Amino acid sequence: MSTDFFPLSAPIPYEGPDSTNPLAFRHYNADETVLGKRMADHLRFAVCYWHSFVWTGTDPFGGDTFQRPWFPADTMELAKLKADVAFEMFSLLGAPFFCFHDHDVRPEGDSFAESRARLDEMADYFGQKMEATGVGLLWGTANLFSNRRYMAGAATNPDPDVFAYAAGTVKCCMEATHRLGGANYVLWGGREGYETLLNTNIGHEDAQLGRFMNLVVEHKHKIGFKGTILIEPKPQEPTKHQYDYDVATVYGFLKRHGLENEIKVNIEQGHAILAGHSFEHELALATALGIFGSIDMNRNDYQSGWDTDQFPNNVPEVALAYYHILKGGGFTTGGTNFDAKLRRQSFDPEDLLYAHIGGMDVCARGLKAAAAMLEEGSLAGFVENRYAGWQGETGRRMLSGEMSLAEIAAHVEAEGLDPQPQSGRQEYLENLVNRFV
Amino acid sequence: MSTDFFPLSAPIPYEGPDSTNPLAFRHYNADETVLGKRMADHLRFAVCYWHSFVWTGTDPFGGDTFQRPWFPADTMELAKLKADVAFEMFSLLGAPFFCFHDHDVRPEGDSFAESRARLDEMADYFGQKMEATGVGLLWGTANLFSNRRYMAGAATNPDPDVFAYAAGTVKCCMEATHRLGGANYVLWGGREGYETLLNTNIGHEDAQLGRFMNLVVEHKHKIGFKGTILIEPKPQEPTKHQYDYDVATVYGFLKRHGLENEIKVNIEQGHAILAGHSFEHELALATALGIFGSIDMNRNDYQSGWDTDQFPNNVPEVALAYYHILKGGGFTTGGTNFDAKLRRQSFDPEDLLYAHIGGMDVCARGLKAAAAMLEEGSLAGFVENRYAGWQGETGRRMLSGEMSLAEIAAHVEAEGLDPQPQSGRQEYLENLVNRFV
Amino acid sequence: MSTDFFPLSAPIPYEGPDSTNPLAFRHYNADETVLGKRMADHLRFAVCYWHSFVWTGTDPFGGDTFQRPWFPADTMELAKLKADVAFEMFSLLGAPFFCFHDHDVRPEGDSFAESRARLDEMADYFGQKMEATGVGLLWGTANLFSNRRYMAGAATNPDPDVFAYAAGTVKCCMEATHRLGGANYVLWGGREGYETLLNTNIGHEDAQLGRFMNLVVEHKHKIGFKGTILIEPKPQEPTKHQYDYDVATVYGFLKRHGLENEIKVNIEQGHAILAGHSFEHELALATALGIFGSIDMNRNDYQSGWDTDQFPNNVPEVALAYYHILKGGGFTTGGTNFDAKLRRQSFDPEDLLYAHIGGMDVCARGLKAAAAMLEEGSLAGFVENRYAGWQGETGRRMLSGEMSLAEIAAHVEAEGLDPQPQSGRQEYLENLVNRFV
Amino acid sequence: MSTDFFPLSAPIPYEGPDSTNPLAFRHYNADETVLGKRMADHLRFAVCYWHSFVWTGTDPFGGDTFQRPWFPADTMELAKLKADVAFEMFSLLGAPFFCFHDHDVRPEGDSFAESRARLDEMADYFGQKMEATGVGLLWGTANLFSNRRYMAGAATNPDPDVFAYAAGTVKCCMEATHRLGGANYVLWGGREGYETLLNTNIGHEDAQLGRFMNLVVEHKHKIGFKGTILIEPKPQEPTKHQYDYDVATVYGFLKRHGLENEIKVNIEQGHAILAGHSFEHELALATALGIFGSIDMNRNDYQSGWDTDQFPNNVPEVALAYYHILKGGGFTTGGTNFDAKLRRQSFDPEDLLYAHIGGMDVCARGLKAAAAMLEEGSLAGFVENRYAGWQGETGRRMLSGEMSLAEIAAHVEAEGLDPQPQSGRQEYLENLVNRFV
Repeated sequence: MSTDFFPLSAPIPYEGPDSTNPLAFRHYNADETVLGKRMADHLRFAVCYWHSFVWTGTDPFGGDTFQRPWFPADTMELAKLKADVAFEMFSLLGAPFFCFHDHDVRPEGDSFAESRARLDEMADYFGQKMEATGVGLLWGTANLFSNRRYMAGAATNPDPDVFAYAAGTVKCCMEATHRLGGANYVLWGGREGYETLLNTNIGHEDAQLGRFMNLVVEHKHKIGFKGTILIEPKPQEPTKHQYDYDVATVYGFLKRHGLENEIKVNIEQGHAILAGHSFEHELALATALGIFGSIDMNRNDYQSGWDTDQFPNNVPEVALAYYHILKGGGFTTGGTNFDAKLRRQSFDPEDLLYAHIGGMDVCARGLKAAAAMLEEGSLAGFVENRYAGWQGETGRRMLSGEMSLAEIAAHVEAEGLDPQPQSGRQEYLENLVNRFV
Repeated sequence: MSTDFFPLSAPIPYEGPDSTNPLAFRHYNADETVLGKRMADHLRFAVCYWHSFVWTGTDPFGGDTFQRPWFPADTMELAKLKADVAFEMFSLLGAPFFCFHDHDVRPEGDSFAESRARLDEMADYFGQKMEATGVGLLWGTANLFSNRRYMAGAATNPDPDVFAYAAGTVKCCMEATHRLGGANYVLWGGREGYETLLNTNIGHEDAQLGRFMNLVVEHKHKIGFKGTILIEPKPQEPTKHQYDYDVATVYGFLKRHGLENEIKVNIEQGHAILAGHSFEHELALATALGIFGSIDMNRNDYQSGWDTDQFPNNVPEVALAYYHILKGGGFTTGGTNFDAKLRRQSFDPEDLLYAHIGGMDVCARGLKAAAAMLEEGSLAGFVENRYAGWQGETGRRMLSGEMSLAEIAAHVEAEGLDPQPQSGRQEYLENLVNRFV
Repeated sequence: MSTDFFPLSAPIPYEGPDSTNPLAFRHYNADETVLGKRMADHLRFAVCYWHSFVWTGTDPFGGDTFQRPWFPADTMELAKLKADVAFEMFSLLGAPFFCFHDHDVRPEGDSFAESRARLDEMADYFGQKMEATGVGLLWGTANLFSNRRYMAGAATNPDPDVFAYAAGTVKCCMEATHRLGGANYVLWGGREGYETLLNTNIGHEDAQLGRFMNLVVEHKHKIGFKGTILIEPKPQEPTKHQYDYDVATVYGFLKRHGLENEIKVNIEQGHAILAGHSFEHELALATALGIFGSIDMNRNDYQSGWDTDQFPNNVPEVALAYYHILKGGGFTTGGTNFDAKLRRQSFDPEDLLYAHIGGMDVCARGLKAAAAMLEEGSLAGFVENRYAGWQGETGRRMLSGEMSLAEIAAHVEAEGLDPQPQSGRQEYLENLVNRFV
Repeated sequence: MSTDFFPLSAPIPYEGPDSTNPLAFRHYNADETVLGKRMADHLRFAVCYWHSFVWTGTDPFGGDTFQRPWFPADTMELAKLKADVAFEMFSLLGAPFFCFHDHDVRPEGDSFAESRARLDEMADYFGQKMEATGVGLLWGTANLFSNRRYMAGAATNPDPDVFAYAAGTVKCCMEATHRLGGANYVLWGGREGYETLLNTNIGHEDAQLGRFMNLVVEHKHKIGFKGTILIEPKPQEPTKHQYDYDVATVYGFLKRHGLENEIKVNIEQGHAILAGHSFEHELALATALGIFGSIDMNRNDYQSGWDTDQFPNNVPEVALAYYHILKGGGFTTGGTNFDAKLRRQSFDPEDLLYAHIGGMDVCARGLKAAAAMLEEGSLAGFVENRYAGWQGETGRRMLSGEMSLAEIAAHVEAEGLDPQPQSGRQEYLENLVNRFV
């Protein structure tokens, strides 16, 4: 019962590395075993609803290019047509998960109540489709940034009514997510930030945001939602400064508001780059801080200063990302979401398929390379060995707090310490990685 | 008893805005009263030793340009000549404070013990000069990054001996700072970061750095040092990633290691810019988080991606910085340090004077503008009014945690809330600021 | 015959620096004489139609915020209401000029012919309004980037039909500009660039663009248009790479296609910043290359990597810009266009006025400071003196080509040349500038 | 007759992709045929003298880390030891070429004449070694930026004596290059730029630089040097603005001074990135403009804003670079120079080998992938087809200048043109590339 939107109806097959069929996987083979687990269970791919089925192809200098049959999707009928096409694509790709905002799936109502009712209706519709297709929900989220009412923020809006409206909206979305068996619930602080400090009280806004997140966590426990609450860091855009700048900033926020054991992070490659970090930095840091949750696997153009949300295409980079994820234990509730959009010139239905196939293949290659690096063990062994001195008596005592500054200073002078450096071997290690990617 | 290094011996006079004398202040008038306090007591200027008297004018593509009589300063005699010139300049400028690293003031010894003894000797020499001139010490610090031993970090070095060496060094410097009546002690994590994640265990390094900072704080209390311990954030350079990336990152670190009430931040304009922030952002954030300490008032060229450490010269920017500082209560132990260096082509002794005179005048203009904005009150009033809704019953209850998510959602629906935005008035506020700068 | 859109009907008065009236000029006094010319004739302010009257407040993460009575302006009646309000604002501000795209002023027709006819009708309507108000046209331009047909470029589109469509459109717009007495005609290469090199033949696209610009110039002469043809450089956005990257790039393009005496540049501060340059760099370079034409006086946020198009608000920066413009002889056909948009939260009609008043005042202060610097002469004198050695015999002969490399080398060796550097005095010069701003 | 500096004396072997020997090539197999030519003849690898044998490991925040036996190389004896080690490494690596500055190879003399004589002596020494080892000279160059005399530029110095000194120096170096059979002569404008516009006359400096380059070209022809003169673009650092910003800027400069057929560009990946471009952009542009010459194959860290000069390690990026090079016909006199330096922590002799082996292997993989893409032909075919419309009658006539703007406009209207866009297929093409890398 195809919508006839796509030029094919059978699922994309796995044909192996030598295939030249652009509508086949060359590397992603869902059932192939990697480190004792199905590739699909490692990667936990999700397709996002908004970029693929809601975005019209506009940019700040141009209008719609995509012209889908369900646009403008301002009726429930069109919203359902959109859902039909979306689930059709999830199935064609064999994607185990999808993600959505409330705003993506239902037309805004004339009132809060109507918007809520429409979301519930669409959630039911999704529920049927999920059952029929076997597609699961990686996470749900609420769009608290597109509507004019949120122009000065949602949780951090100077107007408490907007805070309330946003809070009520998150309640609806989290409950819909819960009902659909979502594995996580995400909060991206779209306009939680400021345009100018001249009109902003950042201390007050921090208190608002802290309270808001606590409300969300309290409600999660109240309704028995077992998924993970995730914050998605981004440094700026749309606002000049976003409060959830990067992983380190989010960690400080969580700690300040007593939430470091309740909320984790959903890290996007593109946002990492916009914040001046490598993707693997953000992954390794979140793992070290115990707040790693999930990823948005979409890159930013290195030369563009705005959010380009492109599908991944560089295997060595992707391999390092999965190396850090696997090393930290892999995903639990999280997964690999493509928060990626087609270039606005790629407006054909098959472009949606090419983009996802390419992204999934790149991730599969990256995962396999990362797994091989882990199994081989040289890289991890090198690092362990580099810090081995801390297993010694003095190292251990210094780190555990058994020696004071004065005792350490006395030790330095008594032993006549004159530590000699050792090569950091960066190029050697880069070559080592290149054996696997 | 001049060294004859500078082409004048009388202090730089204040001659008022109409002066065209390049060796006079046009705006900095130490004793002028601003908001009920001497201008000097507001600004608390400090001159840094390293850039002005130690740096030779090299850059990654070129050698020495400055050729000072005390170079290479590898004997105690040359070190003292350097100190003579330095204090002469502090006096000429009427700067109330200076700052130094151990490395700036004494030649490195053949052993830890010899380096320590030389530092002590120079500290005594400084003590006499401080008494003679009335110049105070804003802060002392240890250079834990130039020597080859620190190439892979100091506190975060994989080798515990380097950690120990660094710890011993900080002990010496903090004690010298204490003896000289220093108002603060600063730690800039020069190479506390990494060059490549491939050889790095960031969790281990974080534990090392946390312990190190706790050692410092414990020692401070033990010796009765009343100054403030300050961390200076910087995002990168010399390393690819510095752990003290920005104010938000440092806050998270302090909180993680239980230090948020013990350590504050020394914020540099240039480092803020390199981290993708405005200076006022970092100041306002540190104030909101309760960790604002002191500033390095040196800008970075907006088009250069490395640390340019230039003297401030844009009054509107500087005015906004002091606005946030004054609004937060002004400096306590902190002050305005010029961690700024001459351009390497500005090698004449008088260039040192021009640079500091210009910087001090720009700060004085900025301070006066900031004070006028505060006294006039419109800007602060606008902000206060913008959040006034939170004084209402529902706002208050939501923020204090008296309402649950479900109650808030019910309230939204019951009241049929449909919040309408208000203009953020950014351009109006920018015009308002331009009445003062 | 006011539209009642604005909360006032009398022109914005000049009230002097002490005024606190937010709807008065504090510095812009059109008839005040600066360097022997009316301030208005120096600055030649223009208001742009698109940002102020066409943009709806959307950004990539949010919808309309402005909700003007003439939106969606898809009928000629609404287009005329928009024009009524626009000219009302031009008059209130006392702006001598405006600028427009075809796309701004008329709804797109169902065919090229209908679009052309509508433009002609609106041009007539403008003509009446210009006569009634005395407002002139600084420049006209065609929007060759918003419509879906231009998604892969206009002149550089792989499809020659798009090239033709764009060429025909420019013809209409340039003729309308001519009819309305426009002082210039601008071409901003909105999508003349590429998204990915993988599908692009940049040599072919360069040939297309070169031909296109020659067509425009040939037509200009044919119809007797005396205005200047201007290209507006921008490095990227919306495309990954724009062919008119910066002034230096445009110069090379013009030279390659024999157009360096026919086309000049319209330089935008924000685009300069996005290209990694200071505004004054682009101005000084264009002047040195003989292609300076006009400016778009709108800044980019220094921390944002996308086009923020903000009104100017930093007087020292603006002063340096006008210093370079005045030093090069000032504007001829060009002027100061505010290609600036309100922040999307500033949606009240009075925000449009605040923004332009603030921008005009900042420019007036900058102009006066620049004029004072020029009159005082120290800065220019310093520079002239720095190159004085080239007036000597050897300098002159080397520069004029009278000495060969071998002769110069022989001269160096014969004279035993050992040139000693002189201080570049950067800080001294920055202080000098700060006497005026 | 080894210097015993390296821990091995036999050349690095090729052992194939499965080798785990860190001192073996896994992909670079000099004699392997690719597109009908030896791999070595395609890649034309060169090792640079300065980074590998002259740089001491300093950075702006730290001192020497490398401590080579020939440091400080301030005698001819040490200079020769350095040369012995350098040629030993070239031989171990099987690198067909090297590159050098005068400054790298001889201690500066007390006079111009002495410096010249020392260079000549070292050039003779090199000549013997080149004959003994078979290593050739890819290019020579003069260091016109490190010495204090060049602090305000060489050719663009305000002092004509510095211009003369620089000119004489280039004469010596070019002649040494000629004598050693160099394939090219490079000019990198180290300090040809400015620190501040306040003290700079950029028009005058452009005239100086134009004359300088013409002097060089004239001398080349006079002495019969058949190599290519190359300018190396860089946007900034050490100066705030470098005149040879990027390929487009250099093209404009050449055209302005009548040099576009005499001088080509040496493009560095790292400099491209610092200028806001991808490497392949600069390569494709230079090819389209007819000025492509040679490459420096060293990357910049994407998150660092200063010149990091790292060895290449990302195969997909390198493959795209060679794709554009091969598509343009491959190198003629140019080659692949590693203008790359070890990380300063990689101070062991074997690190020099690891770094170059890794870089050469990455390039070999990139070359083979690029060759396969070319042979397969789909990518080039797609591009050709995309522009096929221009082969039609109207396209041809418009591009050749046979139709005027008015004729084109009439054609649009007469034919009722309404061009419909086609998908740009970016993701499809990215997937296509990923079949080869």
